[in-house]
Amino acid sequence: MTVPARITVITLGAHDLPKLRSFYESLGWEVAIPGDEFCGFATRGAMLTIFPRTELAKDGHTTEAPPNEGVAMSIAINVDEREQVDEAIDAIRAAGGRILKEPEDAFWGGRSAYWADPENNVWEVAWVPPENAVAKTLRALTGI
Amino acid sequence: MTVPARITVITLGAHDLPKLRSFYESLGWEVAIPGDEFCGFATRGAMLTIFPRTELAKDGHTTEAPPNEGVAMSIAINVDEREQVDEAIDAIRAAGGRILKEPEDAFWGGRSAYWADPENNVWEVAWVPPENAVAKTLRALTGI
Repeated sequence: MTVPARITVITLGAHDLPKLRSFYESLGWEVAIPGDEFCGFATRGAMLTIFPRTELAKDGHTTEAPPNEGVAMSIAINVDEREQVDEAIDAIRAAGGRILKEPEDAFWGGRSAYWADPENNVWEVAWVPPENAVAKTLRALTGI
Repeated sequence: MTVPARITVITLGAHDLPKLRSFYESLGWEVAIPGDEFCGFATRGAMLTIFPRTELAKDGHTTEAPPNEGVAMSIAINVDEREQVDEAIDAIRAAGGRILKEPEDAFWGGRSAYWADPENNVWEVAWVPPENAVAKTLRALTGI
């Protein structure tokens, strides 16, 4: 395929990189690439990196987006068991994450919650039943 | 780990879902989950899904972000060979993607380019030398 069908790295354009890095470290996530100019976490299926927003804009030959408000896109953490949604949200709250939506059973049969990091990047934690198309696709393509 | 260190799905909050889906289809990407209310593509390491921005905001108990301008975060496609950056950018341009930065060799030894989809979601296409920490982490965690 000329454009490989891949999402390999998500780079957050940070206003305060060290502070944002500390938040993700407080989730227990391992820093794979340390640094105040650029850093990366050991996450699967895609890797999480953080880059100052000014630098990301320069690197991409574009402008900085204004500070995040509301949701433009969400980043999901799919968990293996239904109750892990609640456990994750408790830990995210304890780390200072802002819970947007407490864990709820969804009409499609799963369970999910939404939260925002200190710079209002929006995440979802979701448990998806194994027969669901998202779960099937993840299993087939990523082994998660 | 209480909060699994995972990025499994990126959901774009679309203003016009069918149009945005068509754009990604024109990259040659396979629709794993068809639909005008929600759709998903068969991408690795994380899966790409599209959801109307109004619905994403409702689902997340938050508000819609204003239309994207500039860059808040970027989504990367890591390719296996240096020349694939240029090949991918040619295909993205042909599909109607807006090239923000033409392929350039980077000071860190790789090659990268940036582009935006029709709703200004910002992507990078990058080739990273195998000994680079990002490449090592991706290899170890995702097999890409």
